[in-house]
Amino acid sequence: MITLDLSLPDTRYPIHIGRDLLDDANLILPHLPQRKVAIVTNTTVAPLYLARLQGALEAAGVAVLPIVLPDGEAYKTWDTLNLIFDALLSSRAERKTTLIALGGGVIGDMTGFAAACYQRGAPFIQVPTTLLAQVDSSVGGKTAINHPKGKNMIGAFYQPRAVIADMTLLDTLPQRELSAGLAEVIKYGLLGDADFLAWLEANMARLVARDHDALAHAVRRSCEMKADIVAQDEKESGVRALLNLGHTFGHAIEAGLGFGAWLHGEAVGAGMMLAAALSHELGWIDAAALARTERLIAAAGLPTRAPDLGVDAWLEHMSHDKKVESGRLRFVLLKALGQAAIVDDVAPEALQRVLAGPYIRRDTAY
Amino acid sequence: MITLDLSLPDTRYPIHIGRDLLDDANLILPHLPQRKVAIVTNTTVAPLYLARLQGALEAAGVAVLPIVLPDGEAYKTWDTLNLIFDALLSSRAERKTTLIALGGGVIGDMTGFAAACYQRGAPFIQVPTTLLAQVDSSVGGKTAINHPKGKNMIGAFYQPRAVIADMTLLDTLPQRELSAGLAEVIKYGLLGDADFLAWLEANMARLVARDHDALAHAVRRSCEMKADIVAQDEKESGVRALLNLGHTFGHAIEAGLGFGAWLHGEAVGAGMMLAAALSHELGWIDAAALARTERLIAAAGLPTRAPDLGVDAWLEHMSHDKKVESGRLRFVLLKALGQAAIVDDVAPEALQRVLAGPYIRRDTAY
Ligand SMILES: NC(=O)c1ccc[n+]([C@@H]2O[C@H](COP(=O)([O-])OP(=O)(O)OC[C@H]3O[C@@H](n4cnc5c(N)ncnc54)[C@H](O)[C@@H]3O)[C@@H](O)[C@H]2O)c1
Ligand SMILES: NC(=O)c1ccc[n+]([C@@H]2O[C@H](COP(=O)([O-])OP(=O)(O)OC[C@H]3O[C@@H](n4cnc5c(N)ncnc54)[C@H](O)[C@@H]3O)[C@@H](O)[C@H]2O)c1
Ligand SMILES: [Zn+2]
Ligand SMILES: [Zn+2]
Repeated sequence: MITLDLSLPDTRYPIHIGRDLLDDANLILPHLPQRKVAIVTNTTVAPLYLARLQGALEAAGVAVLPIVLPDGEAYKTWDTLNLIFDALLSSRAERKTTLIALGGGVIGDMTGFAAACYQRGAPFIQVPTTLLAQVDSSVGGKTAINHPKGKNMIGAFYQPRAVIADMTLLDTLPQRELSAGLAEVIKYGLLGDADFLAWLEANMARLVARDHDALAHAVRRSCEMKADIVAQDEKESGVRALLNLGHTFGHAIEAGLGFGAWLHGEAVGAGMMLAAALSHELGWIDAAALARTERLIAAAGLPTRAPDLGVDAWLEHMSHDKKVESGRLRFVLLKALGQAAIVDDVAPEALQRVLAGPYIRRDTAY
Repeated sequence: MITLDLSLPDTRYPIHIGRDLLDDANLILPHLPQRKVAIVTNTTVAPLYLARLQGALEAAGVAVLPIVLPDGEAYKTWDTLNLIFDALLSSRAERKTTLIALGGGVIGDMTGFAAACYQRGAPFIQVPTTLLAQVDSSVGGKTAINHPKGKNMIGAFYQPRAVIADMTLLDTLPQRELSAGLAEVIKYGLLGDADFLAWLEANMARLVARDHDALAHAVRRSCEMKADIVAQDEKESGVRALLNLGHTFGHAIEAGLGFGAWLHGEAVGAGMMLAAALSHELGWIDAAALARTERLIAAAGLPTRAPDLGVDAWLEHMSHDKKVESGRLRFVLLKALGQAAIVDDVAPEALQRVLAGPYIRRDTAY
């Protein structure tokens, strides 16, 4: 196991990365102000891992309230959140009861937001069970639920007391979900670390085959980079926007196809291709760099071609993005492989050329 | 106008207190990151004051989205909060749109919580229109909505960027609501300032008659004391509990009679009497001090006798209080008039004697 330390102005917390951490109650105990927790999970993850975590905690004398929610992004809503509040209030959970999220990003986002709001703030621990949650959503303190009019529109910045990323939990993850998580891993390489990018090119086959050591290294480097950026900009006013590489295009794909048609990570994969293509269009990266990007995204099992939404739909969906400032489109683009920058004055013609270019599929209907 | 400065570890903001402040857009403009605001108010306050605030802002070039909610504590719910989110999202309000609460504590608590959650945090300004909101709920950053299983159970600590307390708005406040606000004013005198308590004894008639100067002084001193306590303990882990003087008993009255039968401030009035009686029972304040307390509460137009809930119901409702730590009853009691302390080892017999004593009405059915 290795432990990273995320330091923020008001708080700091450990990110533990390793194997078989689920059974180790000692990673959790130091963070409990009271020997009472609620484990929030879903109907898919509960049969796989709830008993182990609950058993380890109970053996250490901790009272456990399990809260099992329905599975799916469609349930990342106020109504589901309310199931958490109902369970907590029915069991008279006090403000010091710790909420433990055991699941992917959906469970992590909802549990974190529930913890942020329950009696104005209960302690919270993340046990991410998807690769995406381990490298992205569990680190950094963004929590949210969806609103019918927009994804992640209602939420809070609220930091966990600890993150426990157990590589062995990824053994049961569907392959598509693993690839989706790899999209975010590739993102870190592209946006800020050329060496890590090269390591990913050399090791993508091991990652896709779920080699625990390779995964642990990828999670570690991803978390380090995210922690570093979050520490500089907890409330997302500046540099944190770099983490949105591929996401402005990606969100448009998700919205354009209807959320759920593609996984988020798949949309980010194709979105990063478009961001790279736009960077190439602006003369920042060359054709070889573009080809390297494409090979890596493909090796992760991700799409490298976005669906053909039509230029109007692209612009419409991109302008709905939460990152829009005073109506202006902002992109995260690549100055080089391993070096991203925030750009809000992209020439409309350059964008149009990319949206009419080879990284948009024209052969398939959606 | 006088301006207090509330300094917290992460933020500071002004509390403006005076007359005819509603028409002065200059108190608001410096706090707007974008010339766009949503004014959240209710069906009672909107006809009285919305046009004035909206007009002043529009004249200064600010785009205004008015959001008028139904009036009443019964609407302090997620469903009503969602009306705010719906309106913001329908008008494509960005994360920098400022939410202005124009109303009493219900509007302030809901608007603050909506601002805390909207896109994980939008700017927020308080324009409190009840005395209670001016001296209590608008200052300190507690926001919340109710849950069917408990009041204020879901919320956030979230600070406004400014508080604007205009005494002239109190002219239209129902007398019962004015008295309810005075309960919290008396609370500040009792818990920490014997001089202010003496000033209140001398000036209660002017306050009840809504003399603007007297009100401004009372609001100022109350806000100073609250700001002071909040600055020491923003997240309510210690000294902030002093602000709950009268509230453990008061909440039991509200819960026991059914919320809404008595106003919160009325319950706090009778609750402070019981806290004073318990302090007397423990030998901390003498009979003369108890009598002074009673005269002041009565002069504010507040009940000095609590309803007879029965000992079991008292204990049951008090143990539901959010301030309970690990199942233990905590009281805020008076070491002297003007000096409160937190006590969690009150002898059950002393409590029983108070609950069987003269400050409980036995003559009326509820
Ligand atoms: N907070 C943030 O900073 C942040 C960042 C990125 C994404 N997100 C959010 O994260 C969510 C996506 O997260 P996700 O990709 O983890 O999706 P997810 O939580 O829906 O998990 C994907 C699927 O895998 C299942 N699953 C989880 N762990 C498993 C395991 N170990 N074995 C077998 N199945 C398992 C889940 O039940 C689900 O069916 C979105 O809601 C997104 O908005 C948040
Ligand atoms: N956040 C905190 O720290 C805190 C502290 C104390 C109380 N509270 C909350 O505050 C709420 C109570 O606040 P409140 O006492 O202001 O009640 P309220 O907001 O319900 O207002 C009382 C009534 O007066 C009306 N009103 C408001 N201003 C008026 C005006 N100028 N003229 C005429 N009518 C007016 C309102 O529409 C309402 O009908 C409760 O929900 C309580 O939980 C919060
Ligand atoms: Zn992402
Ligand atoms: Zn009160």
